[in-house]
Amino acid sequence: MNEIASLLTSVRDRQPLIHNITNQVVTNFTANGLLAMGASPVMANAEEEAADMAAVADALVLNIGTLTTPQVNAMLKAGQAANQKGVPVVFDPVGVGATSFRNMVALRILEEIDVSLIRGNAGEIAFLAGADAEMKGVDSAFQGDGRRIAVEAAKQLETAVVLTGEEDVITDGNSLYLCGNGHQLQTKITGAGCLLSSVTAAFLAVGGDKLSAAAAAVSYYGTAAEFAASASDGPGGFQSAFLDALYQVEEEGWRKKMQLKRVDG
Amino acid sequence: MNEIASLLTSVRDRQPLIHNITNQVVTNFTANGLLAMGASPVMANAEEEAADMAAVADALVLNIGTLTTPQVNAMLKAGQAANQKGVPVVFDPVGVGATSFRNMVALRILEEIDVSLIRGNAGEIAFLAGADAEMKGVDSAFQGDGRRIAVEAAKQLETAVVLTGEEDVITDGNSLYLCGNGHQLQTKITGAGCLLSSVTAAFLAVGGDKLSAAAAAVSYYGTAAEFAASASDGPGGFQSAFLDALYQVEEEGWRKKMQLKRVDG
Amino acid sequence: MNEIASLLTSVRDRQPLIHNITNQVVTNFTANGLLAMGASPVMANAEEEAADMAAVADALVLNIGTLTTPQVNAMLKAGQAANQKGVPVVFDPVGVGATSFRNMVALRILEEIDVSLIRGNAGEIAFLAGADAEMKGVDSAFQGDGRRIAVEAAKQLETAVVLTGEEDVITDGNSLYLCGNGHQLQTKITGAGCLLSSVTAAFLAVGGDKLSAAAAAVSYYGTAAEFAASASDGPGGFQSAFLDALYQVEEEGWRKKMQLKRVDG
Repeated sequence: MNEIASLLTSVRDRQPLIHNITNQVVTNFTANGLLAMGASPVMANAEEEAADMAAVADALVLNIGTLTTPQVNAMLKAGQAANQKGVPVVFDPVGVGATSFRNMVALRILEEIDVSLIRGNAGEIAFLAGADAEMKGVDSAFQGDGRRIAVEAAKQLETAVVLTGEEDVITDGNSLYLCGNGHQLQTKITGAGCLLSSVTAAFLAVGGDKLSAAAAAVSYYGTAAEFAASASDGPGGFQSAFLDALYQVEEEGWRKKMQLKRVDG
Repeated sequence: MNEIASLLTSVRDRQPLIHNITNQVVTNFTANGLLAMGASPVMANAEEEAADMAAVADALVLNIGTLTTPQVNAMLKAGQAANQKGVPVVFDPVGVGATSFRNMVALRILEEIDVSLIRGNAGEIAFLAGADAEMKGVDSAFQGDGRRIAVEAAKQLETAVVLTGEEDVITDGNSLYLCGNGHQLQTKITGAGCLLSSVTAAFLAVGGDKLSAAAAAVSYYGTAAEFAASASDGPGGFQSAFLDALYQVEEEGWRKKMQLKRVDG
Repeated sequence: MNEIASLLTSVRDRQPLIHNITNQVVTNFTANGLLAMGASPVMANAEEEAADMAAVADALVLNIGTLTTPQVNAMLKAGQAANQKGVPVVFDPVGVGATSFRNMVALRILEEIDVSLIRGNAGEIAFLAGADAEMKGVDSAFQGDGRRIAVEAAKQLETAVVLTGEEDVITDGNSLYLCGNGHQLQTKITGAGCLLSSVTAAFLAVGGDKLSAAAAAVSYYGTAAEFAASASDGPGGFQSAFLDALYQVEEEGWRKKMQLKRVDG
């Protein structure tokens, strides 16, 4: 796992430019989280410039949390530009299943763009894989088997999948990593999943093997949450301490806390 | 007042889904505040999905702080869907009186949607009730009698009104509650009023009697602000401590601090 | 420098209304920063009301960080209304140089609006002055001479310029101030530059001499950052402590830390 931990240093050395077309609830937290970890965030939502920005970025994140039709157009143009340049694309299908507009947009993104990785909760991933899931807002009350859902979705959609929950699953449909890092306070702040999608994009931007890079992102992020939780009394303090931890966590401290297990298919 | 305090436990047990169509300044703080108190926030601004989301929500919040025409259309569709399903609608007329566009939109919402409750400051409520008020940005320099303005507005507009200021007034035009909880630091952070509108929606979503539910929201919120202020040196620390307090305040601690007085008409 | 320090008291006494048409990443932080320092923020992006709001504001800020075409229209209308009423306009050309859309909008703003002051980093200012600059996201890797770039831009564009970096330069093309206040953690949070543009607008709104007012803003802001950095362990805590410091810094404490040098041309 030393190789995995070294990816954090690569991110901090290269400061990859992460282009986020994301929802308006989490733009600030996403930008601050990326800066704290050592990456370079940029947000550009307009159809007129999304493709230009994606083409010079090191990774692109598409997040459908607060969709509008102009933003969808920007996402499609940015995604196509990223595909042409070989820039990795992370897709965060926030709340898919909740409305037919959101479902239609999610399916269109998957059809028209070659997505490198999808990050979502069990309900969102299950929906994309065609399973039924009871939605509770943008969170999921889905009680299925996370590992099975993630593998099934990765196979069907021919992409890597990060399914987050009590146990995080990272898979390409064949191999998988399981990650036990993280803290319950992550569910008490908005954007914890969205920021992870962007952090994963930063690791993909510098990493060689996609699955290892995604596993690194998930474990680093969960470890930072554990440090932050031990320094806070509630979600307000946690949010602040989490940004501090993303900034402060180093390879060595992370390796001691790392709860990653690789399972080959 | 024990019955009122018990509504907080109801919110935390039921985790009502609160659909917010709100201004872009406060989306993050609103989502974090609702999560901290134990409710489930969702933001969905697009015309294409606003009605679908409102129809499955437990309450809807319409906030006109940073209007755009597409968002107005989304508000009207969401409001109508909420009305059809009996979902309570809270209206926050941020900055009404400041521009004719804002005034026109506010009046259109009141005409086309059956609003359960309006939450605003004295200037905003006075404007809706037809009085003149000198506006200072989106805050109010109105010096009138809050109780009189709130009762007059509730009667004219046939809805419940929460008028916030040094003394908060909660009224349906007949009975009223006065609330003395709160802290001056609330005026030094953006979105303190906006988040209260959403917190009130969460109480309306679980409460029986509308007036009591609104009074509960205002007192719980002000009590959390008092705890937060005692733990902070300025508005940055206060913002963080306030989210912690919304998370931590329990029925018993609240009851000891509750400053609510019911006045029957 | 006593006269400069006294401008802070003027801002707090007059609480100028600052109309921000800004990017969606920093709306919340900008509003909270302006409130913390003692000004009154308002955000209004819609074409339908931007001119009305600008006409009653004490200063207007145009920030192109997350452009959309409707927002550009709102900026142009607001800028023209501000010009007609003599309301100072601050322009923040975030990320100019990164896409042709952004470049086109920046040039259009400079052509159609009489801008009182431009605040940007070396790469952004150099781009506007016609120099080449290698862009890294919305930050700049430009290694040129900040003083020379700022003076050249101020002359060419016939406006005041604040160029921020390790050494901040404030110039009207003839005289200049150099400011050494500030802290490296400002580069680790999003919106530190954007908020400075709005804080500068608040000083312009109350100040007589434009150059002195801008120098005051930059030094006050950097001093607050220094206090905040000494009270924080990372960017999360810094963000919160910075808002506290903007609230707490008083004339006397500031004067002791002030690192401002005037150089006449």
